[in-house]
Amino acid sequence: MEGRCLSQVSVTVQPHGFRVRGKKGNSFRRLCHDARLELNSPCGGLGRCGKCRVIITEGHANIGEPTKTEQKHLTRKELSAGFRLACQVIVLGEIEVIVPKETMPAQLRLQTEGIYAKTEILPLVKKTCLEMPQPTLRSLKPDLERLLSALCRGNARQVAVPMQVLSRLPDVLRKSKWKVTATIWSDREILDVEEGDTSKSVYGFAVDIGTTKVACYLVSLLTGETVAVSSMINPQVQHGEDIMERLTYAMKGESERAELTRSIRKGINRLVAECCSKSEVNPDHIYEATVVGNTVMHHMFLGIAPNYLAVSPYVPAVKQPLNVQANELGIEINPHAKIHFLPLIAGFVGSDAVADILATGMYNKKELCLLLDIGTNTEIVIGNQQRIVACSCASGPAFEGAHIKDGMKASIGAIESCRIDPATRKISFRTVDGVAPRGLCGSGIVDAVAQMLGAGLIDENGTLLEDAPYVRSGESGQREFLIVRTSEGYPRDIGVTQKDIREVQLAKGAVQTGISVLMKTVRIEPRQLRHVYLAGAFGTCISPASAKKIGMIPEVPLGIIRKVGNAAGTGARMALISSKARQLCASISSKAQYVELAAHIDFRSTFMRSLSFPSQSTQKRSSEKRTESKQTAGKIRPQRLMHTQNY
Amino acid sequence: MEGRCLSQVSVTVQPHGFRVRGKKGNSFRRLCHDARLELNSPCGGLGRCGKCRVIITEGHANIGEPTKTEQKHLTRKELSAGFRLACQVIVLGEIEVIVPKETMPAQLRLQTEGIYAKTEILPLVKKTCLEMPQPTLRSLKPDLERLLSALCRGNARQVAVPMQVLSRLPDVLRKSKWKVTATIWSDREILDVEEGDTSKSVYGFAVDIGTTKVACYLVSLLTGETVAVSSMINPQVQHGEDIMERLTYAMKGESERAELTRSIRKGINRLVAECCSKSEVNPDHIYEATVVGNTVMHHMFLGIAPNYLAVSPYVPAVKQPLNVQANELGIEINPHAKIHFLPLIAGFVGSDAVADILATGMYNKKELCLLLDIGTNTEIVIGNQQRIVACSCASGPAFEGAHIKDGMKASIGAIESCRIDPATRKISFRTVDGVAPRGLCGSGIVDAVAQMLGAGLIDENGTLLEDAPYVRSGESGQREFLIVRTSEGYPRDIGVTQKDIREVQLAKGAVQTGISVLMKTVRIEPRQLRHVYLAGAFGTCISPASAKKIGMIPEVPLGIIRKVGNAAGTGARMALISSKARQLCASISSKAQYVELAAHIDFRSTFMRSLSFPSQSTQKRSSEKRTESKQTAGKIRPQRLMHTQNY
Repeated sequence: MEGRCLSQVSVTVQPHGFRVRGKKGNSFRRLCHDARLELNSPCGGLGRCGKCRVIITEGHANIGEPTKTEQKHLTRKELSAGFRLACQVIVLGEIEVIVPKETMPAQLRLQTEGIYAKTEILPLVKKTCLEMPQPTLRSLKPDLERLLSALCRGNARQVAVPMQVLSRLPDVLRKSKWKVTATIWSDREILDVEEGDTSKSVYGFAVDIGTTKVACYLVSLLTGETVAVSSMINPQVQHGEDIMERLTYAMKGESERAELTRSIRKGINRLVAECCSKSEVNPDHIYEATVVGNTVMHHMFLGIAPNYLAVSPYVPAVKQPLNVQANELGIEINPHAKIHFLPLIAGFVGSDAVADILATGMYNKKELCLLLDIGTNTEIVIGNQQRIVACSCASGPAFEGAHIKDGMKASIGAIESCRIDPATRKISFRTVDGVAPRGLCGSGIVDAVAQMLGAGLIDENGTLLEDAPYVRSGESGQREFLIVRTSEGYPRDIGVTQKDIREVQLAKGAVQTGISVLMKTVRIEPRQLRHVYLAGAFGTCISPASAKKIGMIPEVPLGIIRKVGNAAGTGARMALISSKARQLCASISSKAQYVELAAHIDFRSTFMRSLSFPSQSTQKRSSEKRTESKQTAGKIRPQRLMHTQNY
Repeated sequence: MEGRCLSQVSVTVQPHGFRVRGKKGNSFRRLCHDARLELNSPCGGLGRCGKCRVIITEGHANIGEPTKTEQKHLTRKELSAGFRLACQVIVLGEIEVIVPKETMPAQLRLQTEGIYAKTEILPLVKKTCLEMPQPTLRSLKPDLERLLSALCRGNARQVAVPMQVLSRLPDVLRKSKWKVTATIWSDREILDVEEGDTSKSVYGFAVDIGTTKVACYLVSLLTGETVAVSSMINPQVQHGEDIMERLTYAMKGESERAELTRSIRKGINRLVAECCSKSEVNPDHIYEATVVGNTVMHHMFLGIAPNYLAVSPYVPAVKQPLNVQANELGIEINPHAKIHFLPLIAGFVGSDAVADILATGMYNKKELCLLLDIGTNTEIVIGNQQRIVACSCASGPAFEGAHIKDGMKASIGAIESCRIDPATRKISFRTVDGVAPRGLCGSGIVDAVAQMLGAGLIDENGTLLEDAPYVRSGESGQREFLIVRTSEGYPRDIGVTQKDIREVQLAKGAVQTGISVLMKTVRIEPRQLRHVYLAGAFGTCISPASAKKIGMIPEVPLGIIRKVGNAAGTGARMALISSKARQLCASISSKAQYVELAAHIDFRSTFMRSLSFPSQSTQKRSSEKRTESKQTAGKIRPQRLMHTQNY
């Protein structure tokens, strides 16, 4: 259409599936930069270093021919394979680009490591190399029976065999001269029969699907070792940043629903391929996968209508653990591999929370524990071996750096921590990779607000004091406190606005309300808590002291707060290598009691109270005076609240 | 292509899938007639009666426009629906035609009825209508758990649910206002969940796949009643008439193998559709199917390489019963329906024999029984509740009227029985439907040879006496005895040639050898037999006296011979409606001992001896003198022969 003239262009950045939009006619590097995705380009986009290599996969018509600079830095072979330099490619229309690992900002911090508790290796999948005598006119045992009797050594058992395996069996047995490797699941189902001895190659795949991030682990089922890790932005983000946006998209119709399912499955296939290529593992040798995620991700991956999760009473279609064959879901590992979906707790507390509980071991502790998995949605769990209660709260995207004026993801140049001297009000800060500051990531904004609070720049209601130094009226007419000042030689001003503070208040208020309602449910006080676990990427970055200062974490000694990283991913790996861990998950899921915050009688008033910041003097005093009553610690008095749901 | 000029045309005749070839320019009726498929056309193809209505489905360009005659007999609506008169349609190229039941020769005798032993109705499939309370904020049980607790009424059980059912569940429950019908298989797998109460509509489908014929039965799983029956020529016949031809075709390559699988599955889908339309049953309400057939048909239907069934030691890929999901095989009943393949006995004794044994009840009899399922391959079983031995022999196509000069299928005009007065040598005969004779079907040829033997026209070696009346030198220079003579006013001569007699000798010799080897294996004499069952279409048509006279059936009193019709189909239905019957089949399969005839030490000599006809005087004497020793009757002395294989 010649008449069409749009000044905006859109680029899909693979392998993460980002969608970058910007002004037509800009270079790809510039578009990324404007979207705060800093590609590796040491020369700053001048075309000197030739390092910002990318591969154009779609939309070649929407970019010009290679420039002389590109011809200098790239071989003819590379050019014909689609390689270009990000700083040279002028984008005139929609394109798709693969950014290779060396060009990708390494600092795109996807939390993939965490505690990895000692777990006994008891996988459900076993591979056995079998040799058997060939049939003769005097030994006419059919192929399958011959295989099974070699496998079960006389212990006749009912073993299921998929049709595809059975139909190939006669050929496989004869081509291999009657020496094959059989893979059996849970002692009752043959997953594959291969020629020769492949018994040493047996893998599992653990998947942690977050609303924003997907992390995958390729694990040897012989040693329990993680042999490859890959992660990506959840490709569903193009249909909505948070869960509610995605639910809204899903509810538009069948095809939108199917698109979300297809998109996450495709993304996971990309991670499978990536992990397999890193570790040189044959994808057909992945015989099991475990999946954790919130309930919406769980339903969407499975292809279950998530619509009813968006409306009261928010019940999931299924809560119990599920085993689904890989080829039914289109996951490109062994077609008969089992994909195990860990059980859920409720509509808004998914299997990621179950995996968190498993990984931290809190289900087995005598002492009372609090677990926070902080993100756009924050899951809160309180409990011990006696009882577990859980809730979820919509903490919003502030903790991910979104909806904050100078907010950004925790990538290069993000201020990740800062300190304001209460006396001099002098500011010091640390950025990701120590480069010049570009903005504030989640932990930076929490730190900033906490420090401003400590320095008396904000009052308990969150009002930014007008007359303080470095408080100015920003462009939008809003008051703003400058953390980074051009006047001090920095390339740009970075500040915290009154609105930013309100966003933090809403976010922390939601978490605080959740904790408070759960504590009421089990009738305990903060001082009875013995362990506080901070899970998830944000939980790992955040300063516990700052989180406590703004009231997000209750009044507990800093020493009991532990960052557990991606505990959900760890739990998924534990369930992958151990059938015992799976049983534990099932019991955690059925034992855990879900508390629907919105239905709680105290919700409204508690939330209103939680918006304020704690009085800084009180806080200091109470943490100094802190005495612990050993008698009451760790005991939950059983109680049945009006608005607490039991199954 | 204008230059193309072939004088031959080819027509596919549905629903049976016949392929009729003939001269281009002939009417469709004439092509059928030449192929010995007599359509219902009382006026003899003159266009007067308008009865030979057919439907043209493919190749309209290869026939002319409707003639005036057709316009007279058919309404405009019928013409536009593709109806034509077979006698008026001039075939100029390839077409496909559906011949409606009323036009089809009713005499195309596909044996679909048989004994139907009283079987307790114990189907594995159960449908239950369930009503459940809807979820509220105080009752957050997930959809599946809600359904299962209504289904199991508190008895927690592990019940599997297919993903497709689970993904629709939230919608189904809400649209039906929480009143649904669940279908459960074997108390452990949900097959479907439907809105409202459909619990009265629950059906099964029994399939008997013969090399030549396929018979299907639609059965109510509530009452055990057969509500529709359909049958067809096995559509694989286009790739070979007998098993060896089809195996040869399958061994050509992957695509040929796949073609045979596709062809039988497609054929069965046609029968499903036919049965459902006859009885107005929703195909989604067919939740189980049972399948019986010889081992090659079994493997081909399942998509298992049958190649190794063609080479020594002829072992099947699998022998045990199998349950396969309908959608895995592409069978168009409920996608999660279970297709149960009855167990086999060996490479050449299939599940049809197991079903025969089940239906006759011989597995449970104290007395010794002999079962013959006669066809191109004949299965022979001897046994009782103590022991069962079985073998298979290649009896060739003579019994189906093939390879016989004037042989034909048992359709209209076929001589199905005949008698020659030994004194006057006057011949009387009966034809199918009593019309003028057109040829000899299997039972006719056996009768003719037996009568010729009795009348002294053939000696014990099978030589046709030269000097007898009505023996002439036929066109091919062969001696031939005329059964039907133009000299007596019949439209054509029909005779039995010396070569025809040799074909019968080979066929009966094979059967006789099989019986003889089995009797040696269990060390019994014919006089110890108490029941002889003749199964299959041919077994139903044949005259037991004639079969005995030519030596195919051993020396037993005629009174103990019983025709059991399509016992395999009956067994398939019994297994369909009763889980107990299935258990019996499994035990029959593992108990039955297969004897490989070709490997038997006495095979060659026995076969050579069996080619001769019994001495007619001896036979008469022995059947007159017959004394039975009650002591030895029914006892099989256990014995292990060199060439008898045990599993």
